[in-house]
Amino acid sequence: MIQSAATALPRRAIIREMGLRDGLQSIATILPTAQKLEWVQGAYDAGQREIEVGSFVPARLLPQLADTAEVLAFAQTLPGLKATVLVPNLKGAERAIECKAELMLVPLSASHAHSLANLRKTPDEVVAEIVRIRAARDAAGSQTRIEVGMSTAFGCTIQGHVAPAEVVRLVGAVLDAGVDCVSLADTVGYADPAMVRSLFAQVRAVAGDKLTAAHFHDTRGLGLANAYAALESGITRFDACLGGIGGCPHAPGASGNVTTEDLAYMLASMGVETGLDFDRLLALRAKLAVWLQGETLHGTLWRAGLPRTMKERVAA
Amino acid sequence: MIQSAATALPRRAIIREMGLRDGLQSIATILPTAQKLEWVQGAYDAGQREIEVGSFVPARLLPQLADTAEVLAFAQTLPGLKATVLVPNLKGAERAIECKAELMLVPLSASHAHSLANLRKTPDEVVAEIVRIRAARDAAGSQTRIEVGMSTAFGCTIQGHVAPAEVVRLVGAVLDAGVDCVSLADTVGYADPAMVRSLFAQVRAVAGDKLTAAHFHDTRGLGLANAYAALESGITRFDACLGGIGGCPHAPGASGNVTTEDLAYMLASMGVETGLDFDRLLALRAKLAVWLQGETLHGTLWRAGLPRTMKERVAA
Repeated sequence: MIQSAATALPRRAIIREMGLRDGLQSIATILPTAQKLEWVQGAYDAGQREIEVGSFVPARLLPQLADTAEVLAFAQTLPGLKATVLVPNLKGAERAIECKAELMLVPLSASHAHSLANLRKTPDEVVAEIVRIRAARDAAGSQTRIEVGMSTAFGCTIQGHVAPAEVVRLVGAVLDAGVDCVSLADTVGYADPAMVRSLFAQVRAVAGDKLTAAHFHDTRGLGLANAYAALESGITRFDACLGGIGGCPHAPGASGNVTTEDLAYMLASMGVETGLDFDRLLALRAKLAVWLQGETLHGTLWRAGLPRTMKERVAA
Repeated sequence: MIQSAATALPRRAIIREMGLRDGLQSIATILPTAQKLEWVQGAYDAGQREIEVGSFVPARLLPQLADTAEVLAFAQTLPGLKATVLVPNLKGAERAIECKAELMLVPLSASHAHSLANLRKTPDEVVAEIVRIRAARDAAGSQTRIEVGMSTAFGCTIQGHVAPAEVVRLVGAVLDAGVDCVSLADTVGYADPAMVRSLFAQVRAVAGDKLTAAHFHDTRGLGLANAYAALESGITRFDACLGGIGGCPHAPGASGNVTTEDLAYMLASMGVETGLDFDRLLALRAKLAVWLQGETLHGTLWRAGLPRTMKERVAA
């Protein structure tokens, strides 16, 4: 018999909405700006306080996200909402600084092959760019925080195995470069709960409380199991997409990010507060299903509803 | 920061195939006996060594399972295969004993309301029936083992909350009645990983190593997260259905049991041996999809395939 040292779970956790960036960038439909603003407002009304609103990349590369500055400007009118933007390089970072984003997320692929294929830079060249980004931020006297998202941290479709030691080395390098926080991303859905426990512990050992978030994809159905394992490791911020949109445009129907509403349900069921309102979240998902007609949405809660036991708890 | 006491995982686990019983009983299609035998053979060839082949209930109640004795007889010709049958009462148990089933699984609902609705007996009346079943087994000099499956152990759609103390009390009662082992079932998909850790620990305290299996449904997407939590609690036998069939006939599309092939993937990825062959399992799933045309199958592995990292490991 295994001695089960049941870990006390955190009391609160934050779900950072990624649908407007990681979700929309992976699907064909270009959502009009008006609907994006309605999404941001709806997510805010449902209790979400961290939203990645888009990406500062050239519009010809990602026309879906060409209106990121407008969406960001709207998000900044909502009190207490922290708006994140993804920036792949210094040029994007300069726009995020100019737009006074609360936080910019810089992806750094731990897979050498993926980094070259995606950004035409080695991971260490990206680290050098992050040094320049931090310098630009400081020179501008900007308050924009810098998060490095360690992508392909659990393996890569191009390279295969990614050594945990390489992830740890790169985390150390970007912390030396002065970034504010790091997150670990299972970009391609290769992680399992045991890997999550192990890698988060290794990165925690070098990053301490600067390891702030987990980003899981549900490609092979382990998204929520991995989120639970990360929660057991003390992580309290999770990236997710409403309706589980996103994923790979080359694999129709394949699941994308962990589903916001299902993750919110798992956390709430375990007594981990997220501040989210399920009725509003599900109403917003229903709108999204109409806006993205023809795209595959994922998740289970929208169909199954909350368990009777949770409804009783809410009503009590 | 939470101190994460990473639990050592078991080295081996068994997936008990439930598709032929829990899966087929919940869907409209009546699978012909020949295809059931092909399924049993295919599961065996893929490495499955425990299969619930059907249920000894009146054929008018579950015409889908009317050929259980034939399927059992075939399963018994396969060396090393442990065939389980569900029996709801003494009459069913007598047939299981007569047919020399390896194990009979007697469901006992921890929810008073569910027990009455399903079997027209209170849980304690079912315990009394289990006493009679054990006496009949012993009087026959039979080797058939008795497992009690504690259903609605995590809550009930009719009654709502089910007190863990009541689950523990009933487990104690059936162990006093001399059953060989007990399992805990989340019949309606209400469990979360924290509940799993807690209830399995409480039941372990009274049942010790006689607590042998976990049965999860994936109604709200938490099936694999719950299986991981049970694994952390030392459980090494999991019920699952190929293609995730089953679930509730009144909720079209709703997920049923945990999906055999996805659970097998999660376990294998974590280095927990199951003895299962993924190519054969997925080939069998493809057959099942044809046999059950019109029914909804679930799961992700059939679409996403094994991660490149696992294929490299297998090839090495």
